[in-house]
Amino acid sequence: MTIESLSQAKVFGGWHKQYTHESRALNCNMRFAIFLPPNATKSNPVPVVYWLSGLTCTDENFMQKAGAFRMAAELGIAIVAPDTSPRGDDVTDDENYDLGKGAGFYLNATQEPWSRHYHMYDYITKELPAIIESNFPVSDVKSISGHSMGGHGAITIGLKNSDQYRSISAFSPISNPMQCPWGQKAFTAYLGTDIKSWKQCDASELLKQAKSPLPILVDQGDADNFLAEQLKPEALIAAAKTHDSAVEVRMQSGYDHSYFFISTFIADHLNFHAKHLFV
Amino acid sequence: MTIESLSQAKVFGGWHKQYTHESRALNCNMRFAIFLPPNATKSNPVPVVYWLSGLTCTDENFMQKAGAFRMAAELGIAIVAPDTSPRGDDVTDDENYDLGKGAGFYLNATQEPWSRHYHMYDYITKELPAIIESNFPVSDVKSISGHSMGGHGAITIGLKNSDQYRSISAFSPISNPMQCPWGQKAFTAYLGTDIKSWKQCDASELLKQAKSPLPILVDQGDADNFLAEQLKPEALIAAAKTHDSAVEVRMQSGYDHSYFFISTFIADHLNFHAKHLFV
Repeated sequence: MTIESLSQAKVFGGWHKQYTHESRALNCNMRFAIFLPPNATKSNPVPVVYWLSGLTCTDENFMQKAGAFRMAAELGIAIVAPDTSPRGDDVTDDENYDLGKGAGFYLNATQEPWSRHYHMYDYITKELPAIIESNFPVSDVKSISGHSMGGHGAITIGLKNSDQYRSISAFSPISNPMQCPWGQKAFTAYLGTDIKSWKQCDASELLKQAKSPLPILVDQGDADNFLAEQLKPEALIAAAKTHDSAVEVRMQSGYDHSYFFISTFIADHLNFHAKHLFV
Repeated sequence: MTIESLSQAKVFGGWHKQYTHESRALNCNMRFAIFLPPNATKSNPVPVVYWLSGLTCTDENFMQKAGAFRMAAELGIAIVAPDTSPRGDDVTDDENYDLGKGAGFYLNATQEPWSRHYHMYDYITKELPAIIESNFPVSDVKSISGHSMGGHGAITIGLKNSDQYRSISAFSPISNPMQCPWGQKAFTAYLGTDIKSWKQCDASELLKQAKSPLPILVDQGDADNFLAEQLKPEALIAAAKTHDSAVEVRMQSGYDHSYFFISTFIADHLNFHAKHLFV
């Protein structure tokens, strides 16, 4: 699998790099970014946290705004930030920001015309890790995190692949997409009207079903504009209580949905993942 | 002086806020951003670091990308980020990024048509601090910092107003604008061809003339694309050597001109300013 370098910049003694590559899973060219800590070498491959961004984002939002590299460099953790959907002129789009490009919802679409490109689940769980592990000084030890739509992605992907990840975290996740406008619109377009398939892409439903879920840390601001209508953390909290799982949902007073919020608590999340990545 | 709130977000226990206001100095409406650390209150006014951004920037680049708030919150320092030029439909512009809007060069233009609005020097040294000190829980104790064009701005403004600031710092400053294309183009347009007026806006010239300059910290990446042609730190280093001043210029191996570089060393700069702000 060939990848092509787009940019690189030194940061906190490590490197931020962007690449483009042909994606078989998505049937288009994709861009991703990786942060490599200073101690990452072939003889010292480091673990990886995959970061899934929210609606409208690319690989750049987290890398430029989260302020994550100080702690990632200190802990010796690589971070990979993929794009949020397939891209390109022949990829189906929607006129609104919450469907189509920038809104892949980290699932495999089964409905035409979306099913031609929208296979973000396969991309994140299979194709991208294979690329990362064959091209960079990283190990196959990984955790997954994300924000909003990407928080939904991190929790659903992590719960469905508990052998592949060590831990899950999320900021302001769409916790119960079956019950909110963003999720209902996306699931209807991508998955059709079969509610059984929706349940396989809903963080709260999956957590309810999970027997022994991975450790999960969630931060949610209580001044988040999307809290009541779209994010619905109460469903996730209720699901966590149905069994004795290691799920912590923290309500953070006064914080909103922005990267200012993420930057405040990202060090906590990296330390949480480090506990599970370095055992 | 009335200011109008545009946004606010909690970050590291403090607040990032954006405002708009009518500027008398610039004869247009301006936007600025302020970070207030959690300990800033009327009974505990905190010192301020003014941050001057580079070409093409607004108040947002530093606030979103520098990762400065963790340390600023810990130290108890407010940060103010103004825009980089006057703005608005009736403000003269240039078709290139290095003159006109986004490129005010932190000086008072004397040449038509620029002199109608381009008085960033007066705005930064007089009008904006008066607004900040009358509207927020801050003291009149301040330092000044900036990047590239804003590094030029911080050093020139700091050296010319040593009673007003405690310390100066810069990332990748345009150190000798009289001798580089960016500076020559801007000075010719804004100041005309009188070289005497150019010398009053050139960091290296001002440092050469200074009797007892404020403490200055400069970081410069040696992988910066603009280093040889535009930034010319050697002139500043030579000027620092002409007298026994507290000027430290650090060449940072492998770093470029981006905010990845700034984010790596911004905590050093805030700690440097704190030493002088809290005496």
